[in-house]
Amino acid sequence: MAAGTVLIGAEDLRILIEAIFRRSGLSPQHAATVADVLLWADLRGIDTHGATRVPRYVDLIERGDMNPAPVLSTRNAGAAAVLLEADRAPGPVAMVRGMDQAIHCARAGGIGLTIVRATTHTAALGYYTCRAAAHNMIGIAFCASQPNMIYHGARSPGVSTSPLSIAVPAGSGEPLVLDFGAGVVSVGRLMQARKLGQPIPPGWALDGAGQPTTDAARAAAPLPMAGPKGAGLALMVELVTSLLAANPLLAEALEGTAPGARHGQNAAAIAIDIARFVEPQAFAQQASRLVCDLKALPRADPAEEIRMPGERGARERRERLQAGIPLPQPVYRELRELANRLGVALP
Amino acid sequence: MAAGTVLIGAEDLRILIEAIFRRSGLSPQHAATVADVLLWADLRGIDTHGATRVPRYVDLIERGDMNPAPVLSTRNAGAAAVLLEADRAPGPVAMVRGMDQAIHCARAGGIGLTIVRATTHTAALGYYTCRAAAHNMIGIAFCASQPNMIYHGARSPGVSTSPLSIAVPAGSGEPLVLDFGAGVVSVGRLMQARKLGQPIPPGWALDGAGQPTTDAARAAAPLPMAGPKGAGLALMVELVTSLLAANPLLAEALEGTAPGARHGQNAAAIAIDIARFVEPQAFAQQASRLVCDLKALPRADPAEEIRMPGERGARERRERLQAGIPLPQPVYRELRELANRLGVALP
Repeated sequence: MAAGTVLIGAEDLRILIEAIFRRSGLSPQHAATVADVLLWADLRGIDTHGATRVPRYVDLIERGDMNPAPVLSTRNAGAAAVLLEADRAPGPVAMVRGMDQAIHCARAGGIGLTIVRATTHTAALGYYTCRAAAHNMIGIAFCASQPNMIYHGARSPGVSTSPLSIAVPAGSGEPLVLDFGAGVVSVGRLMQARKLGQPIPPGWALDGAGQPTTDAARAAAPLPMAGPKGAGLALMVELVTSLLAANPLLAEALEGTAPGARHGQNAAAIAIDIARFVEPQAFAQQASRLVCDLKALPRADPAEEIRMPGERGARERRERLQAGIPLPQPVYRELRELANRLGVALP
Repeated sequence: MAAGTVLIGAEDLRILIEAIFRRSGLSPQHAATVADVLLWADLRGIDTHGATRVPRYVDLIERGDMNPAPVLSTRNAGAAAVLLEADRAPGPVAMVRGMDQAIHCARAGGIGLTIVRATTHTAALGYYTCRAAAHNMIGIAFCASQPNMIYHGARSPGVSTSPLSIAVPAGSGEPLVLDFGAGVVSVGRLMQARKLGQPIPPGWALDGAGQPTTDAARAAAPLPMAGPKGAGLALMVELVTSLLAANPLLAEALEGTAPGARHGQNAAAIAIDIARFVEPQAFAQQASRLVCDLKALPRADPAEEIRMPGERGARERRERLQAGIPLPQPVYRELRELANRLGVALP
């Protein structure tokens, strides 16, 4: 266990998160969904998207930006495409519903798309794409948010890091799951460097005045990965999600309107039914075959294994299910204070 | 006109390309499609994907890797998803058919997907996504090819640069069109640097021995953009296209099989019908609104305009339609020799 961390068992953490959200007004089912999604991130080592978000979500509920009792409704945009009005639901609630709807459509027509309108923080997108993979489908999800990343050629944020995830089933039982943002680094990674007082490499971020910086304390926003490629991808994510949902986020924020100042996201969930094209078992075998071929390539660093998307997370999960989840002291303390304030028993 | 180039009018070039492909065994309709797609790239300044490919395509036909008289057939994978067996058709023929099929499905169900099996070089993907945008749809296309890019953590090529394009209609009449590969740079850009004897920046490529190089003459393959992100994206493109098509490219090539040594690609074409979600005119207006907001951001370099995806290409097209297309001397000479050999009259 790293110094300054508290080990907590996965089930204990799940019970705690669930209780906090039930006390915050969520239905038992919705609280269980939020707990499952956040715990998934903690187990896979995506620490920025796990329990550390619980106090942020409760803040959003108390501020009225996250709706603890949303009425989700779908509008059939076509046999294979659906608009889900999320009514500011907690992101995990909206996204699970969105992906399940896409899976349902894909089962009928081969591919399904849900545009999720007016969700809140979607948490780790890999959860939803792996959900599709567990149904022998290819899962794709991406989400749009407020401007927090530099647009290529600009000096201030213009687009969001726009996370994107793709998961496919593989022969090992563990899906291959890619999950990345369009920035050179994530906003969370910049915040971590700031907390730890680490310098950051050149090319990662601009400061508040729009100048390149290697001082994490001054870093205001990440630069886009591969310049125009990352910036263009982020722009497309806003167009495909927020504009199809008639709920623009970037323009409102950049123009400084009242809606633009409020937390909110839009997202897309896509499922493709493998069985419509090939036998899912043959697909998974071919995926495993390619994984073996790639892992057998000569290594850049002989000591460093060639890794597949999601491999590190799957390994971390196996370890943490056994050993528990190491929460940093400040994260644990914040959770404990929140639990005390809400009258929730600590495990 | 740059030194060492020959100016040729767009219509003259179209007639020449069409005649060459008719003489090479393509039907008049297929020859016209190939000419239109290659000319589109030349007009937009994507010189690596225009007329310079004509001799390469004729080589592929003569070698038996590109089928001049393909029988394209679709297998309905579902109401919204289709497998198109391209029978080694010239890429433009296969991809136009694939995108038109996706548009057809999207009109019926909101979204449509075509997996294009066994195509050959797909040329510039932006052509097909813009075709969807012209129908008030969002167009997405990506394609898988032989290993020509380093997989993150390896010393030799494991994945392909896997081009991806997304186009959406915007208020200006010109769509926003993103078109990029998953490499730090394209293979074409490396070849160009080699021809011009230019050094390349560190981080672009590895040499044949798997070592980093800044000597374009020694550069063997580009590195993936943003490391594991670009590599992971390229891997996913192979899984989603080639594995759904039951026509694996990477594994065959990496294992050195006979099919793996042959030129061939697989691709995906996706269309999303905007009208199923929102009024297309309102969508295009919102897209233009966001473009204005982004262009108004403070500039990193006051002398450098903030550009949108596809903007440079649209400007180039307007200029080249007027002034003609500047073909480099060696490209023109090769075309002329090919035309002479095939008995095609030069314009």
